[in-house]
Amino acid sequence: MVQELQLYNTLHRNIEPFKPIAAPFVGIYVCGPTVYGEPHLGHVRGPITFDILHRYLLHLGYKVRLVRNITDVGHLTNDSDDGDDKIAAKAKLEALEPMEIAQMYTNSYHAMLMQLNVLPASIEPRASGHIVEQLEMIETLIQKGFAYSSNGSVYFDVEKYSETHDYGKLSGRIKEELLAGSSRRNLEGQNEKRNTADFALWKKADKSHIMQWNSPWGKGFPGWHIECSAMSAKYLGTQFDIHGGGLDLLFPHHESEVAQSTACFGTNPAKLWMHHNMVTINGQKMAKSLNNGILVKDFFTGNNPLLDKAYSPMNLKFFILQAHYRGTLDFSNEALQAAEKGLNRLLETRETIEKLEPSAISSWDVDKWVKECFEALNDDLNTPILIAKLFEAVKQCNSTFAKIESLSAEDIKKLQNFFSLFVFEILGLQKEEKSQSNKEIEFLELLIELRRNAKENKDFATADSIRNKLTELGVTLKDSKEGTSFTIN
Amino acid sequence: MVQELQLYNTLHRNIEPFKPIAAPFVGIYVCGPTVYGEPHLGHVRGPITFDILHRYLLHLGYKVRLVRNITDVGHLTNDSDDGDDKIAAKAKLEALEPMEIAQMYTNSYHAMLMQLNVLPASIEPRASGHIVEQLEMIETLIQKGFAYSSNGSVYFDVEKYSETHDYGKLSGRIKEELLAGSSRRNLEGQNEKRNTADFALWKKADKSHIMQWNSPWGKGFPGWHIECSAMSAKYLGTQFDIHGGGLDLLFPHHESEVAQSTACFGTNPAKLWMHHNMVTINGQKMAKSLNNGILVKDFFTGNNPLLDKAYSPMNLKFFILQAHYRGTLDFSNEALQAAEKGLNRLLETRETIEKLEPSAISSWDVDKWVKECFEALNDDLNTPILIAKLFEAVKQCNSTFAKIESLSAEDIKKLQNFFSLFVFEILGLQKEEKSQSNKEIEFLELLIELRRNAKENKDFATADSIRNKLTELGVTLKDSKEGTSFTIN
Repeated sequence: MVQELQLYNTLHRNIEPFKPIAAPFVGIYVCGPTVYGEPHLGHVRGPITFDILHRYLLHLGYKVRLVRNITDVGHLTNDSDDGDDKIAAKAKLEALEPMEIAQMYTNSYHAMLMQLNVLPASIEPRASGHIVEQLEMIETLIQKGFAYSSNGSVYFDVEKYSETHDYGKLSGRIKEELLAGSSRRNLEGQNEKRNTADFALWKKADKSHIMQWNSPWGKGFPGWHIECSAMSAKYLGTQFDIHGGGLDLLFPHHESEVAQSTACFGTNPAKLWMHHNMVTINGQKMAKSLNNGILVKDFFTGNNPLLDKAYSPMNLKFFILQAHYRGTLDFSNEALQAAEKGLNRLLETRETIEKLEPSAISSWDVDKWVKECFEALNDDLNTPILIAKLFEAVKQCNSTFAKIESLSAEDIKKLQNFFSLFVFEILGLQKEEKSQSNKEIEFLELLIELRRNAKENKDFATADSIRNKLTELGVTLKDSKEGTSFTIN
Repeated sequence: MVQELQLYNTLHRNIEPFKPIAAPFVGIYVCGPTVYGEPHLGHVRGPITFDILHRYLLHLGYKVRLVRNITDVGHLTNDSDDGDDKIAAKAKLEALEPMEIAQMYTNSYHAMLMQLNVLPASIEPRASGHIVEQLEMIETLIQKGFAYSSNGSVYFDVEKYSETHDYGKLSGRIKEELLAGSSRRNLEGQNEKRNTADFALWKKADKSHIMQWNSPWGKGFPGWHIECSAMSAKYLGTQFDIHGGGLDLLFPHHESEVAQSTACFGTNPAKLWMHHNMVTINGQKMAKSLNNGILVKDFFTGNNPLLDKAYSPMNLKFFILQAHYRGTLDFSNEALQAAEKGLNRLLETRETIEKLEPSAISSWDVDKWVKECFEALNDDLNTPILIAKLFEAVKQCNSTFAKIESLSAEDIKKLQNFFSLFVFEILGLQKEEKSQSNKEIEFLELLIELRRNAKENKDFATADSIRNKLTELGVTLKDSKEGTSFTIN
């Protein structure tokens, strides 16, 4: 039985108990999007994974500061350091101010998070908004001998760092292989780097480069990795609890973050590194070059040749949650449609529970079920197991409704509370209403139910008060043997 | 007949034709919120005013870049330069990272803009994200002799600037009066400023100050005014078309912006300065000290002693639009309720138009009506006249429906198109699910009250059950000292 939260730590390749540095506070840094395009399927899994973590930690009573950055500069076009800044490239194409593009896609990203019912981040720092902090960190790295300027750019000296530190430890790469074939002397005489493994902290900009800032080394822009080191240190301190991101960021991005932060502050920035796996499409990685991406908004309209029909945000979310975050997840219409059915069954069951009639004794063990659900969450946020447990409850509920199984009043109450807790509060699923006006009816039905409960408990003052207030609001209640009906004026 | 857009220019105290510097492009900078509190009634008029401008310019075919900043640092507690930074003060109070507070209230501000159907800004720069640009501008001002450092702070030298420039021109203040009673020699020997009229460009921070950056003058933070000069120049150029803001910002904020930008770049930053007037409450200015503010979210719940009932976002918006932006607007429940009726009549008329039966000839002149509507917009965005014209159409439509007046098929089509254009596209009004808005909120408030009662009676099962069920219905409750607030997804 896993009685407390355990998480897989990429750094140690091990599942280990989660122990905050300064409980009840928990600091989390998650690598957010590069805002140079519409959010696509690949953008969905990260926010959902870390939202479960966020929600579960809040449930456990922690005070969470979750920082998720917006990369609006500094991400290179390809993974070599010689490319253009991606956003600037797009901006030139569209003849727009790069920050206008960044704003547009930041808005799209926010809209997606809202649709997926992801809790907002505590702080959402932008890379372009932390040039000062990045420059200061680069200067410190130069002073400490871990970085060098070269032709207006600044590079991190991987060989120097490797003399005293274990470069490659996080990503599990062999330091010697990373450094192999490179030397401090540049044979060609053309490359600015001392070593091909070195990575850019600051890149010189030419005049055509439309996002650039002054620096001690001339005009330029920050390298891709430094923003996360600078911003996480600013908002969470030089060492914090959890650093999250996609597995595709493990190398070189996170490995570089570890190197930069360790060289600058003397410590690995995060005690625990969490990586979610990728979504594939028909077994292939999504990539612009493969032209197999699906925009998130396409799911909601069905407007994409890869999609058989439209899928709702919660349908997409439930599909994601059905796989463990560390496993790959392959997109298919069949899987999405199966998820849709499953989600509907869960939501229907929540209503079935309301209708269960209590028995003197319980024929199945709700406490055990609750424990097993928490056990699934504690076991590295194992949402597929949790969902399997929820479906066990679905089956038992239906049997109880059919009087094959039985539950005591107390256990029904418990089941109600925990079923809601897992489905809505921790998995962050929602009922999706076709129209807003349904909410009005649902609130009203809840009020009628509370009045019935009050009457059953002989709390007639409350029951009358609910009736009177509804009358004031233009609602007439009519009680009969079948229950209470209403008319709204 | 006003055939092209004319706008009142505060700089010239005149209504003048709008001529973009580089048509079809139009650059607009609007002073946005200081994000250290929930948006209140005073925050509503600016976004709505400049949204009409934005929407109308888009309709006219311009390519608009609208920049609206987020002040997340540097706004002083009171209008003297000696106060604490407002956000930092609040942060210390709540023992939170200031950027966490800024993020929370930025989110609230965005939610308000969405509810009011205000188009998103093209770029939404944050003051804290442009420290580099502000420092560079301050250094230029020192180099040019218009600013001086003093005890770790930097001040703009108003007397020096006034020797060659007309300080006070924008706000209509007399330079001599602004400078009166001050001298270059500080008689007390304590004030850092050479002249009481001087304003801070950079303020020294002490250790307790939790938002601070390194600068050539030591650790500190930017003064209130410099962010707008630096960010408008960055995203719109050193001179752009329109600078907007509230009349309360005219002095000292906008006057200081003019001085800084003129001293630095040699030109008034904007060709046209637009100021909207204030909303008063029972004839009084809103102020924290008067404790007469109404939070925007209170309007939508009715949860404020100054409000007789809940008002929908479009109701609030229509109330604002019924006054010309340059006139004061006094809040009252009567006016809001009158606006509600008027808005409903407009929306019903849109449906009546659909039902009109065409005649062979038109008995009233739709072309003339369209012209007059545009004339109202062209006359300094005169929304009350436009709305009066829309009500003329309401009357004529009803008469046409009653066969007292008549319209040809072509004119009915024209009326449909232009009525929609003015109501939805330019005024940015929206149909709201009418039955839903008020009743839904009222039912919800009753549920929250029942939960509070249950808690007070230590009936935690009921209290929790209400909370859980609301969570399922997409309602998040947030308890605080002030009571329980909610968000509906």
